[in-house]
Amino acid sequence: MSVKHAKDVEVSKIETGSGVSRQVLISSDEGPNFAMRKFTIQPGGGMPRHTNLVEHEQYVVSGRAYIGIGEETYEVEPGDVVFIPAEVPHWYRNDGDEAFEFLCMVPNLPDKTTILE
Amino acid sequence: MSVKHAKDVEVSKIETGSGVSRQVLISSDEGPNFAMRKFTIQPGGGMPRHTNLVEHEQYVVSGRAYIGIGEETYEVEPGDVVFIPAEVPHWYRNDGDEAFEFLCMVPNLPDKTTILE
Repeated sequence: MSVKHAKDVEVSKIETGSGVSRQVLISSDEGPNFAMRKFTIQPGGGMPRHTNLVEHEQYVVSGRAYIGIGEETYEVEPGDVVFIPAEVPHWYRNDGDEAFEFLCMVPNLPDKTTILE
Repeated sequence: MSVKHAKDVEVSKIETGSGVSRQVLISSDEGPNFAMRKFTIQPGGGMPRHTNLVEHEQYVVSGRAYIGIGEETYEVEPGDVVFIPAEVPHWYRNDGDEAFEFLCMVPNLPDKTTILE
């Protein structure tokens, strides 16, 4: 593929979260080195504190949320750029009244999600 | 860094383009495997047809533009996802009346821009 619109990409529910869905915009089969995914967290939803084996490079597209990274908590908004190093605990919570949407890029390397609570 | 706002990141002019600027949101020093950049092309501006040694994974944030990839031309808008394979000729032209902004992720591998015209 060369060009596609995010709204046309299949949506999958993320069972480890609450009100969280994911679209794989550029898969690890399409991109030779890294993948582009878009996550949506509905109002009242979130992802519990967890770790991954790979880093995340993220960009907030719409909405607001709280993100915990290590011991710090950040409130993020559209245009915010988030870097979560590999193996650092992190979580998401959408306390707002609109969907929180963000891009999350990850390298084509083995990953495992470990829920911490 | 963990969180930063795109508007706070230094802007550099791209001399090979017309009305094109770049912000390095997550550098190849910060991200262990790939970098996140944001490009802005002003109305009437563009990038000439060129190749790179690395692939581009892109996401349109605002505005509209024409993008040429190989022999195809696409009109893109916010939410569009663009994949440009390594070494494939590509170009950008903003014929609209608002700035065209897009994210462009590249792997941490040697790159060279070759202008074709």
